[in-house]
Amino acid sequence: MKVAIIGLGLIGGSIGLDLRARGFARRILGSDVSREHADKALELSLVDEVLPLEAAVPSADLIILGLPVDAILETLPRVLELASGNATVTDVGSTKDLICKSVEGHFRRRQFVPAHPMAGTEHSGPSAALQGLFDQRVAVICNRDASDLQHLQRVEKMYSVLGMRLVYMTSMAHDLHVAFVSHLSHISSFVLANTVLDQEKNTATIFDLASGGFESTVRLAKSSPDMWAPIFRQNLSNVTAALDSYIEHLQDFRESLVEGRRTRGLMEQANEIGRILTRIQTPDGGNRR
Amino acid sequence: MKVAIIGLGLIGGSIGLDLRARGFARRILGSDVSREHADKALELSLVDEVLPLEAAVPSADLIILGLPVDAILETLPRVLELASGNATVTDVGSTKDLICKSVEGHFRRRQFVPAHPMAGTEHSGPSAALQGLFDQRVAVICNRDASDLQHLQRVEKMYSVLGMRLVYMTSMAHDLHVAFVSHLSHISSFVLANTVLDQEKNTATIFDLASGGFESTVRLAKSSPDMWAPIFRQNLSNVTAALDSYIEHLQDFRESLVEGRRTRGLMEQANEIGRILTRIQTPDGGNRR
Repeated sequence: MKVAIIGLGLIGGSIGLDLRARGFARRILGSDVSREHADKALELSLVDEVLPLEAAVPSADLIILGLPVDAILETLPRVLELASGNATVTDVGSTKDLICKSVEGHFRRRQFVPAHPMAGTEHSGPSAALQGLFDQRVAVICNRDASDLQHLQRVEKMYSVLGMRLVYMTSMAHDLHVAFVSHLSHISSFVLANTVLDQEKNTATIFDLASGGFESTVRLAKSSPDMWAPIFRQNLSNVTAALDSYIEHLQDFRESLVEGRRTRGLMEQANEIGRILTRIQTPDGGNRR
Repeated sequence: MKVAIIGLGLIGGSIGLDLRARGFARRILGSDVSREHADKALELSLVDEVLPLEAAVPSADLIILGLPVDAILETLPRVLELASGNATVTDVGSTKDLICKSVEGHFRRRQFVPAHPMAGTEHSGPSAALQGLFDQRVAVICNRDASDLQHLQRVEKMYSVLGMRLVYMTSMAHDLHVAFVSHLSHISSFVLANTVLDQEKNTATIFDLASGGFESTVRLAKSSPDMWAPIFRQNLSNVTAALDSYIEHLQDFRESLVEGRRTRGLMEQANEIGRILTRIQTPDGGNRR
């Protein structure tokens, strides 16, 4: 199979690495608006060849849009038009509803499989690409009935080669759930960083005390604004709802502290998350699925 | 040297492991109000012998209080009284000001060295003890002028054997800084967990989507309420100030989202934390100290 990856950053690049290493793709074409990223991707052998989008898309069997979500929105209709009538087009965006709506009436909508592989690090660009990034993680596929079976199956096959477990939901449900479970984590982390940076004018103090839990909690604050600004914009209503709920819970926690009661109960409630997440690290040891 | 560790949890137990392995202590006595913890600590060879506090303290050269901060407050005066006139007493509490104030006029105050080794995991109890837990982390020593030099030096020696870098501040400054850099991280994590648990009644969804950043951001939500309730209580005014500042920053971030401007700038500001924390992972590569 010939695969074209449009956007050679952390996600696109990591997909290229594993699809080649695991024999899924005979040839991997890559395209990136940044000459620098394209050169780097070639140098790191993330792709076999770099071409302009217009040259890469028409000859590919599977086209993967590994772009920030604003660029997906802009590029997707054109890619569908350039693609051959048998080609499968998929994206990796962290928002799904607006992207799906943007091609609702497109004559090639059924060749498109909207997806969201939930893996990544706080780093970005082709140099951040990692082998095995997707192993044992989850990929969400949205609105499966709107895609033709052959295209759905091709994308399912790709993610199973990447080692991912598949989960299906509507694009609306996806955007609501990720607002709480993923996007809110990033905001809490960005804002925690800014709160501490505002308070501690002497950064040596932050450096000195960061091992007291701060380090892991602000890991996501290193994430790319270029990636996250359009995600928050496209998922605005869900994200603000999640943020409002978070602020409300924080105010309640504060009240419990001042009252001198209830705080322990709130923390015990929060501890439950440990039992849920343990199943992530030991997917075979759990009894849930 | 004979060391007595009062409280054989994650911190006390890990100190025992490394002080023995690195030859700092000839003999390590341990004491814990929980029979179960004491037995476990013996079984895991965290200590050589388990004794009641009244028996362990008087014969030791160095007594380490590895207790939750409310228990430190309660136990410290008695331990100072039981200790020999040459013994050094130190604690590992995450708050320092109230603990220092509680023994301000104590006739053995100068044998006490208030300290806070900033290392840990979200787990607790003797089974959570780890070798090397403290390596390359920071220990804060407070109000050094209030301790006699020989006692200060003994504690400094101990932490240097544990591989820690020492930082000095007043107990008041300590409590303010850790409210922002450490305690707030724990609250943001506890509350993030509760916000998501409230929203996602089907925990399978949390499990499925947690690799999108949530997992690392809520790690601290697994922390022990027994340990954290008294920390928040003892550091209430600083913790509520930190929480208020965090909520304010969250509200500002929310406004920026709705305005559709400024968000990128706020995220770029937050990215700065990456440059500060990188120095933690590569302490020799930095140029800061």
